[in-house]
Amino acid sequence: MAAAAGLRAFRAKVPDWLRHGRCVPLAAGFCSGGPAGAGQPEPGSRLTSSRQRDGIRNIVLSNPKRRNALSLAMLKSLQRDILHEAESTDLKVIIISAEGPVFSSGHDLKELTDEQGPEYHTEVFQTCSEVMMLIQNHPVPVIAMVNGLATAAGCQLVASCDIAVASDKSSFATPGVNIGLFCSTPGVALGRAVPRKVALEMLFTGEPISAQEALLHGMLSRVVPEEQLEEETMRIARKIASLSRPVVSLGKAAFYKQVHQDLRTAYHLASQTMVDNVALQDGQEGIKAFIQKRKPVWSH
Amino acid sequence: MAAAAGLRAFRAKVPDWLRHGRCVPLAAGFCSGGPAGAGQPEPGSRLTSSRQRDGIRNIVLSNPKRRNALSLAMLKSLQRDILHEAESTDLKVIIISAEGPVFSSGHDLKELTDEQGPEYHTEVFQTCSEVMMLIQNHPVPVIAMVNGLATAAGCQLVASCDIAVASDKSSFATPGVNIGLFCSTPGVALGRAVPRKVALEMLFTGEPISAQEALLHGMLSRVVPEEQLEEETMRIARKIASLSRPVVSLGKAAFYKQVHQDLRTAYHLASQTMVDNVALQDGQEGIKAFIQKRKPVWSH
Amino acid sequence: MAAAAGLRAFRAKVPDWLRHGRCVPLAAGFCSGGPAGAGQPEPGSRLTSSRQRDGIRNIVLSNPKRRNALSLAMLKSLQRDILHEAESTDLKVIIISAEGPVFSSGHDLKELTDEQGPEYHTEVFQTCSEVMMLIQNHPVPVIAMVNGLATAAGCQLVASCDIAVASDKSSFATPGVNIGLFCSTPGVALGRAVPRKVALEMLFTGEPISAQEALLHGMLSRVVPEEQLEEETMRIARKIASLSRPVVSLGKAAFYKQVHQDLRTAYHLASQTMVDNVALQDGQEGIKAFIQKRKPVWSH
Repeated sequence: MAAAAGLRAFRAKVPDWLRHGRCVPLAAGFCSGGPAGAGQPEPGSRLTSSRQRDGIRNIVLSNPKRRNALSLAMLKSLQRDILHEAESTDLKVIIISAEGPVFSSGHDLKELTDEQGPEYHTEVFQTCSEVMMLIQNHPVPVIAMVNGLATAAGCQLVASCDIAVASDKSSFATPGVNIGLFCSTPGVALGRAVPRKVALEMLFTGEPISAQEALLHGMLSRVVPEEQLEEETMRIARKIASLSRPVVSLGKAAFYKQVHQDLRTAYHLASQTMVDNVALQDGQEGIKAFIQKRKPVWSH
Repeated sequence: MAAAAGLRAFRAKVPDWLRHGRCVPLAAGFCSGGPAGAGQPEPGSRLTSSRQRDGIRNIVLSNPKRRNALSLAMLKSLQRDILHEAESTDLKVIIISAEGPVFSSGHDLKELTDEQGPEYHTEVFQTCSEVMMLIQNHPVPVIAMVNGLATAAGCQLVASCDIAVASDKSSFATPGVNIGLFCSTPGVALGRAVPRKVALEMLFTGEPISAQEALLHGMLSRVVPEEQLEEETMRIARKIASLSRPVVSLGKAAFYKQVHQDLRTAYHLASQTMVDNVALQDGQEGIKAFIQKRKPVWSH
Repeated sequence: MAAAAGLRAFRAKVPDWLRHGRCVPLAAGFCSGGPAGAGQPEPGSRLTSSRQRDGIRNIVLSNPKRRNALSLAMLKSLQRDILHEAESTDLKVIIISAEGPVFSSGHDLKELTDEQGPEYHTEVFQTCSEVMMLIQNHPVPVIAMVNGLATAAGCQLVASCDIAVASDKSSFATPGVNIGLFCSTPGVALGRAVPRKVALEMLFTGEPISAQEALLHGMLSRVVPEEQLEEETMRIARKIASLSRPVVSLGKAAFYKQVHQDLRTAYHLASQTMVDNVALQDGQEGIKAFIQKRKPVWSH
């Protein structure tokens, strides 16, 4: 009953940033009732865990025995946790991390055998793509916190986040070619995060790059020693959580929209966004506070 | 009178690289009569200074007390200095630098309060965007020479130049989020100069990056010790000033046009540009001089 | 007779990846009968040499006395060697290298004088562009192995390959401006391989960058000491040669197609590519072998 009510409420006020999706799993995921809700494939065994405090949501891939494989169930669990109360003004930033020495090994190969058939395969890859796009379309910044190996769709997940912080022992690979499955969907995120020659050598050889190389080539925002990983990530998250959510949301959406446009169209959009931003309550509060040399008080 | 005559002359031979603008401030700026001309908001207090010698124009942001804020008046002054006799064959390259320890702090926040209203805000952001696009559309290369902090639209200005040289004490930030004003227009230039994760961490946290990081990520062409900044920048400028202006102009325009096209369209355009370039007087002179092992003599 | 039969056979089964070309030189090149065939401008003096072993084709620019200039004859010879039996399942990867201290000095300037005329110039630049696009459109990965100076179209050739390995003594430049001929076509490849400011400083000043700088900025995949260059390149080539050719070909084509698309279109294409890949014989073999913990046996 609660789930059905939530579904109706969701449909009534479905936000713009979700509307352009052609596939339905997002809405389906959203309606599950969140981290502990109904509708999960196996109610007793959550594949991700999620907790939120002071505006910061920590989502943890929690299936270390399976190297945090992005099975269809794992993808849907991750999707639910990202979408859960996405419109709540209490949420300011999301961190995605993982239990165990492997951040994520990518798709679960047992789901890609002949026995499953092409329709199931299609659902796996479409759901995966939806999750990756959801990160960019989400109203708050999403940070990957990586401590270990991230391969294939796991590497794609890191490349798809807005910000990525990794420990210096982490490494990244798209090794699909080794098993006859070229990492074409990871290549979408990789090809937008690093120079083309770096992406192609990774895709063609399947060999890993180090965290330092990933930083050098733009896949990571920063690399720190393992013992500083959580503190450094939380420092960034706390900074973002201290900001105005409407301002950050407006800016994030405009950034991803303009970055593919020609320069004149991009400036037209961004200039209008600036004017809209100035007109926001938090825009005026921020400017007044600065001129009055005081700390701003955000609406949320 | 002189200004009116200049305006008519300008309209009669308005160059192609200015025609695609939808906004008029460029022409308005151009008609002011240049560095010392009429039409400035405050005739006695130039916000930029400009001098030209041996084909090299040095434009200096000259309002260090206001941290070289890009107020509407400053933007128009900069625009005038960039546009002044842009078609003159005596002009080969432009350097933009700044007085004082801050290259530029970005927009003047006093211009963005409620009192000014959205129409004024729109004029500020549109003029700013026009100046940034003007740099790419200008027939000669524009070099940023940075010695100090460049933030928000000041960072955007650096990212918008064709070449950027900075001293190792310089730093760069887009801190708008701190005052509730996401740096969306700076994000247009930033998102085209550095990898996406670098741009987004800067935009979401407002924290500065060092000159070395800016070099690593592609926002700067080179970083030198402060005492070598001017010499290194002038070395590049003198090299460009020694080249054929028509050849450099043709190449600059083609580069920015093709870089967003699909590969086949880009090669079609660039191949035609090469054929046109070979047919230029300076194209043939250069090739002949090379074969004859002598120094070329350019038309201008 | 053999050539005519080959031409008919070629036309009958012209592959998709060649069909979108608007120019004919590719087919013309393909029909020459390969490395030792007829139709070359000077049958006795091959400008490139080509040998193939264990799936790895080594194509060598072999005109060191002319600094491996990319004359029209050299371009056509290179084109023939790249296209020769491109559809053969024996071919897994191509390496392009050069004899002598100069990888390639770019176009032959004697072909660009007034005497040759614009039609000849057009053929030179179009053929060059076709060769560069052919590398991306080719079904197998193409690796540049660089040991020395690569300038102008020579630099373009390196930037156009899928992977590029260079010795630490190599350097790269687009010095056309020095002779009044802006490197506009090299700028197409350069502008897609390195950040814009790096590309523009190279194009505007003509000054070389070191192998290390080229690596830093994404033009190279890796840099090694000269004595390790061949071994390191062969290591990568052998790795690719050990993979499934249909899988690598499918992935390469999808990568270049999606990388310019908007994110949703890109994911739609890549997801379908993954489903198709899983359905390939080698896709199922690879997954089965992985689950059964044995080495996969590829169809080819």
